[in-house]
Amino acid sequence: MKILIIGAAGMIGRKLAERISADGGLGETAVDEMVLVDVIAPQVPAGRISNVSTQAIDISAPGAAKPLVAGRPDVIFHLAAIVSGEAEADFEKGYSINLDGTRDLFEAIRAEHAASGYTPRVVFASSIAVFGAPFPAQIPDDFALTPLTSYGTQKAIGELLLADYTRRGFFDGIGLRLPTICIRPGKPNKAASGFFSNILREPIAGEEAVLPVSEDVRHYFASPRAAIGFFLHAGTMDLSVIGPRRNISLPGLSATVGDEIAALGRIVGEKAVKLIRREPDPTIIRIVGGWATDIEGRRARDLGFVAETSFDEIIKAHLEDEMGGRAKV
Amino acid sequence: MKILIIGAAGMIGRKLAERISADGGLGETAVDEMVLVDVIAPQVPAGRISNVSTQAIDISAPGAAKPLVAGRPDVIFHLAAIVSGEAEADFEKGYSINLDGTRDLFEAIRAEHAASGYTPRVVFASSIAVFGAPFPAQIPDDFALTPLTSYGTQKAIGELLLADYTRRGFFDGIGLRLPTICIRPGKPNKAASGFFSNILREPIAGEEAVLPVSEDVRHYFASPRAAIGFFLHAGTMDLSVIGPRRNISLPGLSATVGDEIAALGRIVGEKAVKLIRREPDPTIIRIVGGWATDIEGRRARDLGFVAETSFDEIIKAHLEDEMGGRAKV
Repeated sequence: MKILIIGAAGMIGRKLAERISADGGLGETAVDEMVLVDVIAPQVPAGRISNVSTQAIDISAPGAAKPLVAGRPDVIFHLAAIVSGEAEADFEKGYSINLDGTRDLFEAIRAEHAASGYTPRVVFASSIAVFGAPFPAQIPDDFALTPLTSYGTQKAIGELLLADYTRRGFFDGIGLRLPTICIRPGKPNKAASGFFSNILREPIAGEEAVLPVSEDVRHYFASPRAAIGFFLHAGTMDLSVIGPRRNISLPGLSATVGDEIAALGRIVGEKAVKLIRREPDPTIIRIVGGWATDIEGRRARDLGFVAETSFDEIIKAHLEDEMGGRAKV
Repeated sequence: MKILIIGAAGMIGRKLAERISADGGLGETAVDEMVLVDVIAPQVPAGRISNVSTQAIDISAPGAAKPLVAGRPDVIFHLAAIVSGEAEADFEKGYSINLDGTRDLFEAIRAEHAASGYTPRVVFASSIAVFGAPFPAQIPDDFALTPLTSYGTQKAIGELLLADYTRRGFFDGIGLRLPTICIRPGKPNKAASGFFSNILREPIAGEEAVLPVSEDVRHYFASPRAAIGFFLHAGTMDLSVIGPRRNISLPGLSATVGDEIAALGRIVGEKAVKLIRREPDPTIIRIVGGWATDIEGRRARDLGFVAETSFDEIIKAHLEDEMGGRAKV
């Protein structure tokens, strides 16, 4: 089997490549070739796949998608995107990469399908940003797409294209509406959602973190480990049972900031909790106030997608996957 | 005020141009210039607007939108589209006209907005084809967009773009999800939905009509007169009260084929009803079985959109608007 990961230098793409490489396969199927693509050349992960190549490609450049598809990968993971803040700040860049880049990829597959009958599996990273307030406390699986950002709009359009190209038989697609990933590894960043990870990751590493909202703020989460599980499942599951609605709101954990902090205290200790400094930020309070607090995710659970059910689990996964098993506080 | 109608040679576009021309204005505002555009040159309607020009333009041609927007119309009605059957038969043509043509128009407005602050009102013709089965007996206003045709996909993408461009302030947009228009004037056509109109229009004109489905088939309708009312209201109403959800499921009449026939008997007589010949068509039965039977339309009603509440009204409107007041049977 041959696999293509577009967006393989991002956090999820990198972890997905590492995992497939370590497993030497996708589910029960051995992988003999993996192509990793991003706007900067991704790293080649250690592991059991001998033929791993990397390419630095801007998928929004004219003709960029064609050579990727010419290699006829069996499974294409498409995670490349300009993130929410940047797509909002740079309208043209967001549409160019998130919409045109996705459509160019789908069109390249359609051309190869017409030429040779090629019909790969396409796993598309979407986002709960396709939903915009107001919405019910728990967003149902059949809720309207009403994005309030250009990023969410571009992801929603990608979903619609994916469903139509799948219905037409050009490829076999599935779109995954990812919850907010927490605990993101790495350094604090300026994303409005960054604090959800910062207030756990930094104290676990013995560093101070800033909490800009109140403890009763509720949001919807899955760990990086769960996210990799979502992509592996989407890459191997029987897609024929899904029907025409190919875009799935994934399961996640609906929890408050208070739940995060309580779990930090239980798993790591009060010393870690004391490293959280409260500094209310009206801008972040306003932005986060428009975000989903819970999502039904019943279809996804019925289809076998699994996420954490407590922040204790999420913190333990972070300790195991990023910290060699223990906190530094 | 200056008005641009794109798709002005189609049934709705033509009637809209005729009505605005007859009124000499849009709502309370006098119209001093109207530009009518379609892939074939629209007719200049009689009326009270002296400066009416027509142009034959393929809006999917590169650069086609720019000169239309350069004239800085205050209100743009965008009705141009490849219909459902053709968009399904010709994938590339459907995407080119229904998606790229719409996006090019929006982009041309954005460019003029950036250059001069131009911020027109844009009224976009969408369709209940953005919904695909399975759905509840009555589709709520916040139901997911799950189109099962390429046409519906293209309209749903147009809606998302319209909402995002409006949110960004490039124009002030509203998208109208039109019910199936009935009674369509003109000759019987091969659209799968054609029979809904044929079984009334043809008998009213003294001609036979074929009914390919059973009388209990339920669907969602508005008359051409109601449709023109929708566009006029969308062109004049206060858009600031709508909020960010700019695409509106319009009110309509949920009725069965049996309701149509009963109204035909009441308004025109049993002689007309006898002109309906039953010829079940399994293909049409299957297609129509996946269509919406009713739509909530509560937001639209609250915003002042009005449709018929019985087929008696729809038939009377047809007699008045198309038949000089009386049937030929």
